[in-house]
Amino acid sequence: MSRIKDYYTIKLHDTDAAGILFFANQFKIVHDLYQRFLDEIGFPLQERFASGDFSLPIVHAEADFYAPLTVGDTVEVSLGVAAIDKTSFTLEYQIIDLDGKEVGSAKTTHVTVNPKTRGKITLPKSFRTALEQAAENQD
Amino acid sequence: MSRIKDYYTIKLHDTDAAGILFFANQFKIVHDLYQRFLDEIGFPLQERFASGDFSLPIVHAEADFYAPLTVGDTVEVSLGVAAIDKTSFTLEYQIIDLDGKEVGSAKTTHVTVNPKTRGKITLPKSFRTALEQAAENQD
Amino acid sequence: MSRIKDYYTIKLHDTDAAGILFFANQFKIVHDLYQRFLDEIGFPLQERFASGDFSLPIVHAEADFYAPLTVGDTVEVSLGVAAIDKTSFTLEYQIIDLDGKEVGSAKTTHVTVNPKTRGKITLPKSFRTALEQAAENQD
Amino acid sequence: MSRIKDYYTIKLHDTDAAGILFFANQFKIVHDLYQRFLDEIGFPLQERFASGDFSLPIVHAEADFYAPLTVGDTVEVSLGVAAIDKTSFTLEYQIIDLDGKEVGSAKTTHVTVNPKTRGKITLPKSFRTALEQAAENQD
Repeated sequence: MSRIKDYYTIKLHDTDAAGILFFANQFKIVHDLYQRFLDEIGFPLQERFASGDFSLPIVHAEADFYAPLTVGDTVEVSLGVAAIDKTSFTLEYQIIDLDGKEVGSAKTTHVTVNPKTRGKITLPKSFRTALEQAAENQD
Repeated sequence: MSRIKDYYTIKLHDTDAAGILFFANQFKIVHDLYQRFLDEIGFPLQERFASGDFSLPIVHAEADFYAPLTVGDTVEVSLGVAAIDKTSFTLEYQIIDLDGKEVGSAKTTHVTVNPKTRGKITLPKSFRTALEQAAENQD
Repeated sequence: MSRIKDYYTIKLHDTDAAGILFFANQFKIVHDLYQRFLDEIGFPLQERFASGDFSLPIVHAEADFYAPLTVGDTVEVSLGVAAIDKTSFTLEYQIIDLDGKEVGSAKTTHVTVNPKTRGKITLPKSFRTALEQAAENQD
Repeated sequence: MSRIKDYYTIKLHDTDAAGILFFANQFKIVHDLYQRFLDEIGFPLQERFASGDFSLPIVHAEADFYAPLTVGDTVEVSLGVAAIDKTSFTLEYQIIDLDGKEVGSAKTTHVTVNPKTRGKITLPKSFRTALEQAAENQD
């Protein structure tokens, strides 16, 4: 299996009066793929809130913007597992245009916390295994 | 006392590539005043979720857009109580520019529901009284 | 041909702390289908800004919310042409869940304006024809 | 003079179904202060598009999230000039709660480009001077 990928077309509300993608909305776009990734590895986001055993807040996020994107542009977004630590993991995202040129990238670091106490907890074993399998399969 | 009012300056992320306020963001702007209104009448939004006795989902929203707003424009947003019914209430909002010209308006209708069952409930008495006082004071 | 339709899965950033779709984001969701509709009838949104012959600001928008939507819910959004007038047109949108139950609806009224003067203009003939054909085909 | 600062109250639409600030919206919040900063140093954002002499796209953004923020929380956001280079500059932002505890931080790196060609240009002299003065005054 390869990296998880999806196409995305820039919406009018993703852009601003400068005529291009508003930078913060690139984080929304990569987070949409993260949401699908969680579905695919069997830990859908909605269960993080409902079941209450652990949640996955983001503690660090960063992005680079290599080329302006405008409304109607279609890009391919892909996600990879960059690191798995004791109480956190980092995902990286690549955004390429339809010519294969990289137009943006991002990283998000998540910690596993007890949703009630908000205290950090060790990655639950089944979740760690799912992340490790995704990491193996992405090459 | 008069209508609740606040100034708002259009942010870059409120606009889109057409160079003007993206229409859906006008609903965010009026909802921000609604949030402050709930604070002022003693029913802050955060307590709607925490206390769990009732929540106030929107069942209808509408808006008119009379003039384009661009980044950096400052407007005055005001809120009035338009109707109070058994299980719902309607607020209306007016947006005027600094010359006093109306540039937009909106309405939101909210129902009171049991947050657990999502079933409609009668407006709690203390909340109805707070709305009625706001309605009296707005003229 | 039938109504233009698309599936949409509620994203985490569409929701708010009440646990459900933030009402203003329903307008974003239907606008995404409007963007695709313009592509399909041959008048892509990006050309509205680039070509400069006419733009399509929204002058009225309204929505009803029949049932709460939560992160991960997939809905079907469809669009129909509700009215075509001299200088404006109205689109209506229906949102149904995967059981076919209507969970939301919306309308947007757009005027055709000269992008430089912002003055209303008659619907350009080719655009009117495209709207009329879409209206005929939607039944 | 000290750092530019402003208060911000977390809005319902800034949060998500996890009950806390959606991470991408922290970038919106700091960008709002950036918009005010540009006003204060005499280079309002709206003139970047209108005048067409230079624009300031973001090429890198990052943020840390130290504590969850919920609807109704008021924070103080401050901005400092972190670096001024030949064709770029970096701003840093600090978010503290009302007890003075740091709850978040961010950085944005902007390049100066010719809005027509999108090519990088040297920071215009008057703009560089304005940034340098802000940097001197922030301590």
